[in-house]
Amino acid sequence: MGIEIERKFLVIGDEWRALAPGTLYRQGYIPTLESTVRIRIIDDRGFITIKGMTQGISRSEFEYEIPLTDAAQMLDTLCKPPLIEKYRHKISLNGLVWEVDEFLGQNQGLIMAEVELKSADQSIDLPEWIGEDVSHDPRYYNSNLAKHPFSTW
Amino acid sequence: MGIEIERKFLVIGDEWRALAPGTLYRQGYIPTLESTVRIRIIDDRGFITIKGMTQGISRSEFEYEIPLTDAAQMLDTLCKPPLIEKYRHKISLNGLVWEVDEFLGQNQGLIMAEVELKSADQSIDLPEWIGEDVSHDPRYYNSNLAKHPFSTW
Repeated sequence: MGIEIERKFLVIGDEWRALAPGTLYRQGYIPTLESTVRIRIIDDRGFITIKGMTQGISRSEFEYEIPLTDAAQMLDTLCKPPLIEKYRHKISLNGLVWEVDEFLGQNQGLIMAEVELKSADQSIDLPEWIGEDVSHDPRYYNSNLAKHPFSTW
Repeated sequence: MGIEIERKFLVIGDEWRALAPGTLYRQGYIPTLESTVRIRIIDDRGFITIKGMTQGISRSEFEYEIPLTDAAQMLDTLCKPPLIEKYRHKISLNGLVWEVDEFLGQNQGLIMAEVELKSADQSIDLPEWIGEDVSHDPRYYNSNLAKHPFSTW
């Protein structure tokens, strides 16, 4: 188990593109009431992740690798469409790893950057391609983007 | 992934007790809308199981072993109380394995036997300690026993 503390921002411009290649992520959510149960395929590896309810900007997280065929089957049969598809670019800068997600499909046009912190009050240097802080806006949770995609806002 | 086809019965009398020792199971459910997400501890091993919606007496099932500490933490923080606690007795008879569950806590007094089948129409010899067939009664799903325990019926 880990506690995830992250901040999330909109991305502006294209300067981040030269900094890291993208990897295709395909993920969906098993419909739940409080916790989040995510099924994810990264390239050819499958994962299941259980996250507790968000408290501020932190939440408990449990992740396990699972067979790719299981992940594909759960995405197709147990997760509610539409699935989230995005290219994730992992960019290391000043001791932090920025995950820039460029969404596809029904969330095309949305580009978000997440950074994981060691503590909730850690100060961070913001690269110039970082825009609005949307950490506290639940519309930008991936689980909500699966229900209410960016293209429908 | 497996497809689980099982039949479930009430148990009568005590003759089954001499046939196999019991192992303590402790399990809970992450609140979901359609699929079932179960966290289970058997002795000192943890598991997470995802089951699709029941179709007749079969449903898809995905099970993974996880660290015991993760399972304990999810049972305590993500699963809705009351947890299900039971002793499971695995009894092999005529090529079938009967799982006799003797419930504790808020489901005390309930004793059920499950048998997993190879096909939905497989014929089975019923031991004399097998009572009413409750395969199709959703009150007896463990996930429902966690919400509406036997003692409250």
